[in-house]
Amino acid sequence: MASSSMVSKIQQLGKMLSETKSFDRVLSKVRIVSAAKGKLSCELTVGEEHTNLGGTLHGGLTATIIDSVSTWAIVSAEHPPGVSTDLNISYMRPAKIGETVIIDAECLKVGKTLAFASVSLLNKDTGKLIAQGRHTKYIA
Amino acid sequence: MASSSMVSKIQQLGKMLSETKSFDRVLSKVRIVSAAKGKLSCELTVGEEHTNLGGTLHGGLTATIIDSVSTWAIVSAEHPPGVSTDLNISYMRPAKIGETVIIDAECLKVGKTLAFASVSLLNKDTGKLIAQGRHTKYIA
Amino acid sequence: MASSSMVSKIQQLGKMLSETKSFDRVLSKVRIVSAAKGKLSCELTVGEEHTNLGGTLHGGLTATIIDSVSTWAIVSAEHPPGVSTDLNISYMRPAKIGETVIIDAECLKVGKTLAFASVSLLNKDTGKLIAQGRHTKYIA
Amino acid sequence: MASSSMVSKIQQLGKMLSETKSFDRVLSKVRIVSAAKGKLSCELTVGEEHTNLGGTLHGGLTATIIDSVSTWAIVSAEHPPGVSTDLNISYMRPAKIGETVIIDAECLKVGKTLAFASVSLLNKDTGKLIAQGRHTKYIA
Repeated sequence: MASSSMVSKIQQLGKMLSETKSFDRVLSKVRIVSAAKGKLSCELTVGEEHTNLGGTLHGGLTATIIDSVSTWAIVSAEHPPGVSTDLNISYMRPAKIGETVIIDAECLKVGKTLAFASVSLLNKDTGKLIAQGRHTKYIA
Repeated sequence: MASSSMVSKIQQLGKMLSETKSFDRVLSKVRIVSAAKGKLSCELTVGEEHTNLGGTLHGGLTATIIDSVSTWAIVSAEHPPGVSTDLNISYMRPAKIGETVIIDAECLKVGKTLAFASVSLLNKDTGKLIAQGRHTKYIA
Repeated sequence: MASSSMVSKIQQLGKMLSETKSFDRVLSKVRIVSAAKGKLSCELTVGEEHTNLGGTLHGGLTATIIDSVSTWAIVSAEHPPGVSTDLNISYMRPAKIGETVIIDAECLKVGKTLAFASVSLLNKDTGKLIAQGRHTKYIA
Repeated sequence: MASSSMVSKIQQLGKMLSETKSFDRVLSKVRIVSAAKGKLSCELTVGEEHTNLGGTLHGGLTATIIDSVSTWAIVSAEHPPGVSTDLNISYMRPAKIGETVIIDAECLKVGKTLAFASVSLLNKDTGKLIAQGRHTKYIA
């Protein structure tokens, strides 16, 4: 189901993000691994720039990843990115510098006015959940 | 009720944040305006570096602000910063480049094992809510 | 700012709820204390019918109260009740049988398409927070 | 992986719920379909007693179902039920009287002090999501 043209299109987004001066630059090391309509899988290897003062993946960056990768999944379902109404995150385990995080985003519903998506962050080595969140957007 | 020594202490945190290579650097322009035990008020003037591709305050940065300023409020109540368990945000209005955002954080409960805090972001000119969130931390 | 006609109108709602066979019947003992445009204050004395197996206010009823009293606050702002998109609750302290709970609901924003409201449940004797939640509704 | 003794044990819980005077009585028509360690699948056919004034599954009952069925899933993983810290729900589609709702609960993490679970409600006929939520509990 993965579409290489969709991956290519979203990778162009990745390139654009790496060059932007906007806040999206903090996602410049997020690598898109696969994409299908309404589904997106990415990876990020945690570096110092991604951490809190305790040396693990910052909860604010986790929230930013959930916000943005879910938006890319909505766009991959050929819908406008819309504006956020609600975002929530549960934090289950830390991710340390050098560890690779899998980011799996899935659209739960994309309607005429509202879109809902879920994002899970997993430790690539252990498969265990680091965090999970849901994002609601107004896309009319 | 505001304590100037507490402001001074937290402003040192601000200075430290501005020099860090960690993700907290994205908060380097957040200014602490007043602090009391369990309450903290900050300001941020939105710059290009804080925005999404639509030119308004990025929802991921809003989440990061809620995550971090609530943590500073918990620390201001003389508790350890702890680790996040849950974070949620409702997004009500955009904040444009050049606009100043008031960030009001308040501890709702700081117990032996769990702390709860609420954070509101308001437009300084209009007083209207931009976003509001709640943060739960495990602090045992 | 409290409007006695609004209280009367919402008390009629209360009477209707006490007679309904729908799920809203579980709110039949919620008493409306005051109402203003977009703000509503209620009380509930916890009875056995409101509890979990541990003998304290059930988290599902807390969620139902936040869902419904926030909706009444939106209606008190002369807007349609709409449909829920997101609801969140943080649980801070238990409420025991015989204790009276104050329920304060406030509209945060009522726009053309979306409404946001916050609800706090407090112990009437101690003034301490039992729970706090936010509710987002699509009202277009 | 489904354990018939576990189903039997949880069905006893079901019987107990149907006889209780506590708020859990509102779940008396929830049928447990299968259970495994940390996973639970239930069904509910929507009746008038489960609805809002619009004639569809009440958002407060949806929240109660997510709260309780996730707790049963934590118990099925041989952990204490604990106390709620956070609950969130996104509402995607209505469920009408006469429709059967599948309720799938899954523990995301059950640690020493905190447990996290996710619950999805789906329309049995269409397979489409009605609502999804997450529940965090303190179980130490």
